[in-house]
Amino acid sequence: MERYDIAVIGTGPAGISAAITAKIRNKNVILFGSSSVSNKVSTAHGILNYPGLPSVSGTELAERLTGHLASLQISVTKAQVSTVYSMGSYFGIQTGSGMFEASAVILACGVAPSQLLSGEEDFLGRGVSYCATCDGQFYRGKEVIVAGYNEEAINDTIYLSELADKVTFLPAGKDRARIADEASEKFKDHSNIMIIADEIPSSISGSLKAEALNTDKNEYRADGIFIIRDAVAPDRLVPGLKTDNRHAAVDRLMRTNIPGLFAAGDMTGAPYQYIKAAGEGNVAAISAVNYLAGI
Amino acid sequence: MERYDIAVIGTGPAGISAAITAKIRNKNVILFGSSSVSNKVSTAHGILNYPGLPSVSGTELAERLTGHLASLQISVTKAQVSTVYSMGSYFGIQTGSGMFEASAVILACGVAPSQLLSGEEDFLGRGVSYCATCDGQFYRGKEVIVAGYNEEAINDTIYLSELADKVTFLPAGKDRARIADEASEKFKDHSNIMIIADEIPSSISGSLKAEALNTDKNEYRADGIFIIRDAVAPDRLVPGLKTDNRHAAVDRLMRTNIPGLFAAGDMTGAPYQYIKAAGEGNVAAISAVNYLAGI
Repeated sequence: MERYDIAVIGTGPAGISAAITAKIRNKNVILFGSSSVSNKVSTAHGILNYPGLPSVSGTELAERLTGHLASLQISVTKAQVSTVYSMGSYFGIQTGSGMFEASAVILACGVAPSQLLSGEEDFLGRGVSYCATCDGQFYRGKEVIVAGYNEEAINDTIYLSELADKVTFLPAGKDRARIADEASEKFKDHSNIMIIADEIPSSISGSLKAEALNTDKNEYRADGIFIIRDAVAPDRLVPGLKTDNRHAAVDRLMRTNIPGLFAAGDMTGAPYQYIKAAGEGNVAAISAVNYLAGI
Repeated sequence: MERYDIAVIGTGPAGISAAITAKIRNKNVILFGSSSVSNKVSTAHGILNYPGLPSVSGTELAERLTGHLASLQISVTKAQVSTVYSMGSYFGIQTGSGMFEASAVILACGVAPSQLLSGEEDFLGRGVSYCATCDGQFYRGKEVIVAGYNEEAINDTIYLSELADKVTFLPAGKDRARIADEASEKFKDHSNIMIIADEIPSSISGSLKAEALNTDKNEYRADGIFIIRDAVAPDRLVPGLKTDNRHAAVDRLMRTNIPGLFAAGDMTGAPYQYIKAAGEGNVAAISAVNYLAGI
């Protein structure tokens, strides 16, 4: 298996900045993202304080960032990273498209959800999963529920409907309405998917038949529950990672408690600003380069 | 005297970023710089890793940064800040153009000189000065020496020659040759300025007639010695500031040990990178805004 020098996880300003600096420092870099640039950037309205680009729109900043990647021949590996394991001298990176290896890892996965579903953490790995591609195969011929916070959740649900007998899809989060509309359209030809669009997912609880997802109105039971969001809690992504509240705990050089593992951007805490994220990505990359020089 | 909300000292990417974010957050901001943007930016060759601006030249980045300031109606107050005093509930900022007051201060003065002249610190305030505009008046009719590390030193020397009877100018630092050339040209009509271009300033030592500046070859004596560099050591600029080696010691929110005083950019330590500086300026501004909300 190819061993990359540095794996960067996330294609917001932090991840893109880290990949750019790592590449300029002649490192063999793999950049993981769900799309070429994070949705948060593309959908931003005017950004007034990215120095050098006054009043840039989110769309333009996204184009400029992807253009910058392209100018340095950095491609985005479109795979959802589910877990990063420290193996001592390198890292194993589990994604929906298989395992990858890198000597150093920079996490730039955005801010974790402010509010987990009640009970979510208790059932994680015991019927609750964040990654359809990783765990879908365990539910062949069974019933699953998807709480979907983003557009990816829609595609994940279609994938799951090809394995499971029945999939119940509940749009979740602040974009619920938009996701519900898009899901109805896309699920038209998938008769084993049921959409529950008028209830808000609230908690996970135990039951005889695996877990139950409860909404403000009802309880839904299935063999497995998938929760698909843009970002997962940092210590769920990397077992053993020290966190500070919901953020990866880092020092001024963006080092986490795990040697060779760095973090940058919203993931490390407020302020949640594009230029702060870009600056931290740069620092994380330089620190990773220095780490590689030392091992 | 007008009390500004936030004074930003320095017009590199950190200071400009801080001023932009502070202004957007509706603060009354004063931005001090020796020119509209730092020389370090303007004279950089290609900058490859400022995300969104691939392969930008130093000149273009400088133009974009000043354009961003202009778009927000932020002007640069061209004054050399010699000292920042914490007065408890506000700060006094001493410059060559008089005193200013601000409730919070963001230092973004660049990296301090890696090597002071031997003995420099011992004589600071006792014959050695960093600010011609502040202290020149004390040498009316006397003799002074200028160790000049930048172009400003040339103008400062002309100013001093209008006060002092005799000025000895020694180009210093890595740009010595260029400074010497420019100085010879500019000093043509100033008969009381002598240039010593072929000796390297090395130390300051005591003598009966005030201090002496020693070079690799000779000793020069005068009533006062001016050392003109782009940046001074942070704890010389702000009495009581905690430093870490030559850098202002800050936490992740860019707070120094002095409440209301923040620092950003090269001044806080490596890596010395434009995008890192811009990111830190943003964080310092947000922290200053939060500080102001709390007092």
